[in-house]
Formats: sequence, structure tokens, C-alpha cells
Amino acid sequence: MSARFVSVQSPFLVPFDGGFNIHKWDTSPPKKKRDDAANEAALDEAIARMQKLQARLLANDRKALLVVFQAMDAAGKDGTIKAVMTGINPAGCEVYSFKKPSDLELDHDFLWRIHHRIPERGRIGIFNRSHYEEVIVVKVHPEILGFQRLPELPSQKKVWQERYESIRDFERHLARNGTTIVKIFLHVSKDEQKKRFLERIADPEANWKFQSGDVREREHWDEYMDAYMDALNETSRPWAPWYAIPADDKRFMRRAVAEILVETMAAMDLEYPKLPPTEREAMVAAKAQLEKE
Amino acid sequence: MSARFVSVQSPFLVPFDGGFNIHKWDTSPPKKKRDDAANEAALDEAIARMQKLQARLLANDRKALLVVFQAMDAAGKDGTIKAVMTGINPAGCEVYSFKKPSDLELDHDFLWRIHHRIPERGRIGIFNRSHYEEVIVVKVHPEILGFQRLPELPSQKKVWQERYESIRDFERHLARNGTTIVKIFLHVSKDEQKKRFLERIADPEANWKFQSGDVREREHWDEYMDAYMDALNETSRPWAPWYAIPADDKRFMRRAVAEILVETMAAMDLEYPKLPPTEREAMVAAKAQLEKE
Repeated sequence: MSARFVSVQSPFLVPFDGGFNIHKWDTSPPKKKRDDAANEAALDEAIARMQKLQARLLANDRKALLVVFQAMDAAGKDGTIKAVMTGINPAGCEVYSFKKPSDLELDHDFLWRIHHRIPERGRIGIFNRSHYEEVIVVKVHPEILGFQRLPELPSQKKVWQERYESIRDFERHLARNGTTIVKIFLHVSKDEQKKRFLERIADPEANWKFQSGDVREREHWDEYMDAYMDALNETSRPWAPWYAIPADDKRFMRRAVAEILVETMAAMDLEYPKLPPTEREAMVAAKAQLEKE
Repeated sequence: MSARFVSVQSPFLVPFDGGFNIHKWDTSPPKKKRDDAANEAALDEAIARMQKLQARLLANDRKALLVVFQAMDAAGKDGTIKAVMTGINPAGCEVYSFKKPSDLELDHDFLWRIHHRIPERGRIGIFNRSHYEEVIVVKVHPEILGFQRLPELPSQKKVWQERYESIRDFERHLARNGTTIVKIFLHVSKDEQKKRFLERIADPEANWKFQSGDVREREHWDEYMDAYMDALNETSRPWAPWYAIPADDKRFMRRAVAEILVETMAAMDLEYPKLPPTEREAMVAAKAQLEKE
């Protein structure tokens, strides 16, 4: 018997009691974990384990794994997804990047487009950004609410409380019905973001990613940190835990993410399915028939 | 300037003039291509090239690549997709396995569910089975037409001609609008299929895949070959070429598929996007601002 909901023992697990303080949470790895070669080797090892577990997840076809990535720009979402998931059979893995909602999407509640992209049973689904933008960027820029075609709203404060509650309820429903949820916040420092923006600007093969708005958003850094702290405290729960990963060292970050994913999958009890008795009999008969051909 | 439609020089390209004879087409690789180590090395090399091209495809975000896999059971669709695509960033690759149409899908024309799964710009989409089932399995078992909620139909012969035409028109439309299409038929012999079914039955980690119907379908082998021959002749066109790959040797098959995909991508003219002039100016300003912080 496994526990109904899986959360992994980790120093980066955001506690379920609201005690996450983003200002005191490290953006650098612990001193003992700064060996690049060791971090790379550990990443490779985690990926090799994940490949085996994914084959079972796909065969089992009763459960799914949803991995949500949220972070400030340039924290390393794209690179981490690429580094951690590239060794995985894409037949069992789908990545979806949520952008600004479309007109069609705004004609629905904010979880409608999210629900549509929840991974099928047997699969790993990766969300690059997610419904959490609704309590992060929208909270930092509440004027966006005015474009969301909402009915009359309660007070500002209550809006966010209601959204947190909707998210908790939605995720608990998914978890009860077979979707294991892991949420990853890549916690980068303001200085490291600056360094990465400058690197991106300097690299001709990367600077097509430049968006002037990203740099402007640095003015709101403290408000973003507060929004993340509230959102993680309000929604890290046993059925959908958040992990806040130090993101200033890319190799460590990738290793830490891979290890959380692989430990989560290992705890999912993924058995190969069993043939029903009638198909088992048919299989024996088919074997005899094939051998006789 | 590249040609509008891409097809790769290959001995396995199904000609566009209807001259494909499935009965004379090899299921074994040419004698010079049976060196396992060489085939594995060539596969790795093709994957490494594909990784670079995929990064460009994703950045470019104007074109997509659709790869259709069709084959008899146990020819190696799943294994080939896994072997060829596992080194690819799953953020830019989506695999979809078409099953028996659902009630909702049968409430629409047979291309409706296919259109829904065409890859987004920037992505590689892999179809494990496809709309071709509608002119393969349905042609071998025309009684299925009776369950497809169709209006009154023309004669049997005309049904297939109309479906081929619908498929050609649909694929040409996609190709004109930025989807490069490659269709792969894994051509396995009846003896090799028997061998693989017996291996699958003998392997406890694989025999959950056993379906008694798969073995029964061997009785219709010749009809399937005729259906494939007609479908490939009717729908291999410059904008959506078929390649019929000898599938009795798995290593050769995977190498041949990977090489066709990589050559196709190489011919797609995938440039990194350029920033518009206003964003370029904003980037220079942002750089100055960041450095001053």
C-alpha cells in the first residue's frame, strides 16, 4: 500500500502549513552540492531511472504525472525541461507552454484551458507556466483582471483567496483521480537574472528570445516575490506539493528537479498491467497456432 | 530558395507515379547495410544532427514537421518512435497514437480528429497510426463503414477513391501552409511478424500488449498488403511523400527512418528568427539599463 498522495522527502519541499519564507530561501545550492561533475553524473543517473519508470507508467495506463514549472524569466524553465526530459520517450511525455490567454480562452473560467491540457493516463505532462500565472502576474498587475471578462468581482483581497481555493480544489480532484502533481518553483536571484539577461542579449543564437517587457518587469521584483510566497504557501498541499529549487546554479537545479521527479515516480506504484484471464487463454492458443503455421 | 515541398533522395521513396509494387519491395535491408554497429552509429549521428535542427525549428516557429507512421502490427512503430525521438527535446515534439475512433469522433468526418492533432508551428508531430487506417483496416473490413454514421455512400470502389482524394487535398493544404509531411511505412514480412509475436508472448514484461485480434488479422495479410499498396500509390506525392522502409532488421529500420527525418529537416530552411528593429533598439537600451543597475 502506498500513501494516497505522494510527496518526496526534500529540503526544498514547501511546507504545507504556510511557513515558506521566500526571502530566507536559498537561491544557491548548499555548499556540498556545488560540484559540477557530481551534479551532471547525478542528473544522468536520475534520467536513466526515470526512463525505466516511464516505461511502466505508460504500460500501466492508470495514472499520470503532472509537473508544473513556474519561475521568474530566465530562471531556467526551458533549459531544465530540455535537460531533464530529453532522455525520455516522447511518446509518453507532453510539454505545454501556456501563453497569454486567447480570446477563446478568456471566454471561459481560468482553469478551463488548464483542464484541457492535463496529461492522459500513462503520460507525463509538463506545464511551462500554468494556472499559477493567474495569481502571480495578474496579482502583480491587477489591471489585467479588467480584461478577463469576469462578472462583478469581490474585493481585491478576496479575489486571490478565491483563486487559491479554486486551485486547491481543482488539484485535489485531479490527484484523487489518478494525476500525481509535482510543482516546481525555480528560485533565481535578481542578480543572477540580470547576468542571464545580459548573456542572452550577447548571444546571437539566443537574442531572438529577448522581449523588452521582461527587463521592465524587474521593477516589480519584490511584488513578484510576495506573490510567489503567498501562492506557494496557499497551494502547497500533500496532494500537490511545491518544491522551491535554488536556481542560481543550473547544473544543481537540473539535478535537483530530476531527483524529485524520479523519487515521485518511484513512489507511484507503477505495475505492468496484467492480461485478463480470457486474453491469457487466447494468448496460449495464439502461440500454438503461430508455431503450427 | 528551397523547393516548396521537400522530399529526400532515398531508395525507399515511394514514387509519385503509382509505380510502387509492395510484393517486390524488400523487407530486408540491402546486403551492405546489415552491420549492426554501423547502423547504431549512424542512428546516433542522425539524432545528434536532428537535435540541432529541432532547436532551429522550435525557434523559427513558422513551420512544423508531421511524421506519419503506418505498419502491420509488431513491425516496430513504437520501438522506432522511441529509438529515433528519445534524444529530442520533448518541448518541441508531440506523439499521438490514434485508436479506434470514439463516439464523439465518429460524429465528424474522418479527418476531423486528425486535423485537431496536427503539430503547432515550431514542433515535430508524430502520428502512431493515422487517417490512413481509414483506407487500410476499413478497406480490409468494409463492414466497419456501417458503424461510421455516414450518409448514403457511393459504390465501394468509389468510397476509397474519394477518401484518397480527400487525403491528398488535405495534406496538400497542410503542406502549403507550413507543415512538412513525411510518411513512413515500416514494411515487415509475414515471417518476421510471426517471430515478433512469439517473442512478445514469451516476454512477461511485454505480453500485456498481446491482443488476440492481432494474430487473427494475419489471415488477412494479403488484403492488407493490397490496401497498403493502393494507399501508398494514391497518396505519395511531392507535398507528402511516403517512404517504405524494410523493417525486418530493427537497427537498419531505425537508422533509415532517422536519416530520412534529418535530411527532410535539413531541407526545411530553418533560420533563427530576427528581432524586429524596434525590439532590437529596445534590447540595446535594456542592455545599458541592466549594466547601470
